[in-house]
Amino acid sequence: MIVYLNGEYLPLEKAHLSPLDRGFLFADGIYEVARFYRSRAYRMAEHVQRLHEGLSALRLAVDAGFYANVSARLLEENGLAGGDAIVYAQVTRGAAPRTHVFPSASTPPTVFAFARASDPPLSPDSGSAILVPDERWARCNIKSVMLLPNILAAQAAKEAGAADAILVRDGLALEATKANLFAVKDGVVRTAPNGPWILPGVTRSAALSAALRLGLAVEERALTVEDLLASDEVFLASTSLWTHPLTRVDGKTIGNGKPGSVAARLGEALWKEFTESSP
Amino acid sequence: MIVYLNGEYLPLEKAHLSPLDRGFLFADGIYEVARFYRSRAYRMAEHVQRLHEGLSALRLAVDAGFYANVSARLLEENGLAGGDAIVYAQVTRGAAPRTHVFPSASTPPTVFAFARASDPPLSPDSGSAILVPDERWARCNIKSVMLLPNILAAQAAKEAGAADAILVRDGLALEATKANLFAVKDGVVRTAPNGPWILPGVTRSAALSAALRLGLAVEERALTVEDLLASDEVFLASTSLWTHPLTRVDGKTIGNGKPGSVAARLGEALWKEFTESSP
Repeated sequence: MIVYLNGEYLPLEKAHLSPLDRGFLFADGIYEVARFYRSRAYRMAEHVQRLHEGLSALRLAVDAGFYANVSARLLEENGLAGGDAIVYAQVTRGAAPRTHVFPSASTPPTVFAFARASDPPLSPDSGSAILVPDERWARCNIKSVMLLPNILAAQAAKEAGAADAILVRDGLALEATKANLFAVKDGVVRTAPNGPWILPGVTRSAALSAALRLGLAVEERALTVEDLLASDEVFLASTSLWTHPLTRVDGKTIGNGKPGSVAARLGEALWKEFTESSP
Repeated sequence: MIVYLNGEYLPLEKAHLSPLDRGFLFADGIYEVARFYRSRAYRMAEHVQRLHEGLSALRLAVDAGFYANVSARLLEENGLAGGDAIVYAQVTRGAAPRTHVFPSASTPPTVFAFARASDPPLSPDSGSAILVPDERWARCNIKSVMLLPNILAAQAAKEAGAADAILVRDGLALEATKANLFAVKDGVVRTAPNGPWILPGVTRSAALSAALRLGLAVEERALTVEDLLASDEVFLASTSLWTHPLTRVDGKTIGNGKPGSVAARLGEALWKEFTESSP
């Protein structure tokens, strides 16, 4: 695997970070994941914009424009230019003697990226989710590497035999560990509004647009756990999954217990947009 | 600087982490900082116990006992055995292909440690603190590397010319970015109780014990911002600072505006315990 690190393309085994990297010591960094079909990025401008906003929020002096160029080269270097792949990129505040305040302005940020083939879709049988308390920080709209609560929730889901964990804060079912959460009730497609408690997912936004194109009503309002469990359909949305139906949540059957038609129609629309859009 | 990484003692420049280390990608790790005087650790058993609890909380299969041995060797290797020094240690879930759930059980954790001379005390003039919203996660009792909110708050304090930032959640002034928070009112020494919203500081506990030995009343109950500002004294407590008086908080003068006597007496008691305890 050829990765990108601070201006160089090199084998993963030769890519070395200092243990004083502030990503490692402090989670002082952000990341981004975009998906590519035959080297064409899905909504790259939105990923670059979100990366730019994260860099600004953390006051990291890096131009988000690197992402597109580095992605193209990584796909080529790794023989992924013809297929369905993702490119992960991370920027941290660099390596410096450990102190909480920002290091000197001359400290170069660390920029790391790698590409790999997209995961196969989740099994259609993976339709259950657990509910866990949302233990994340108060700025979930920043795509930071502060992912320990997501890790612990995802692991709890795996051990419960579930596809994912839904994070619940103050009675609201906000999103999953690495996907936004949607529900459908009486024909209305609903998801939490953007703001500090969820990640502004690129596929979240694309799914809302697709729903409108399909003539569905949409509502951006957080779901209570009661709303969620009483929905006709529940599904996840992310750049990795497109949509993935959940037929059981917290041990309760959703709707008629079958994957719903809205998730399927939106998933098809997103896949079509991904694979058929002009370059 | 000679550091410790995964069983080896080597120059910092030769200590290499994989960019796939889960500490870097996910903040999937914990850390500890202990202080040493002439190679004698201050309350090492408590640091090891807290490290053990963090490892257990994250289900990291590492025996916390490494900390004492590695510390002794690092102090020697770096010419710090005769002085006042700190040893930082961090354990993460190791390097593995990026996926939220835990990697295979055969993935070795990453264990990193370094030693350095203790910082000089803060200037006695550094007596002000700002108030900032506490944006941390919901398990602050785990000494995880999820420190981005602490970083941003510490930087805001620095830019405001303050010694530190006090983190306020739901109207409660809980602690600072890397120190516990104490106040004195009518002779009662008060600090927030242990639990999910603060770090169970070793010096916090030592300061409470010292206060009792000095015949002072103590109370473990979180301070509202109003309580804090109406205190006779406010001070920080940490392994790096012992105690440090705050004479201005949020632009308001605390008590008579002079460093308080309780902070001074506790600071002396802690310093004495540190430097005079038997090995």
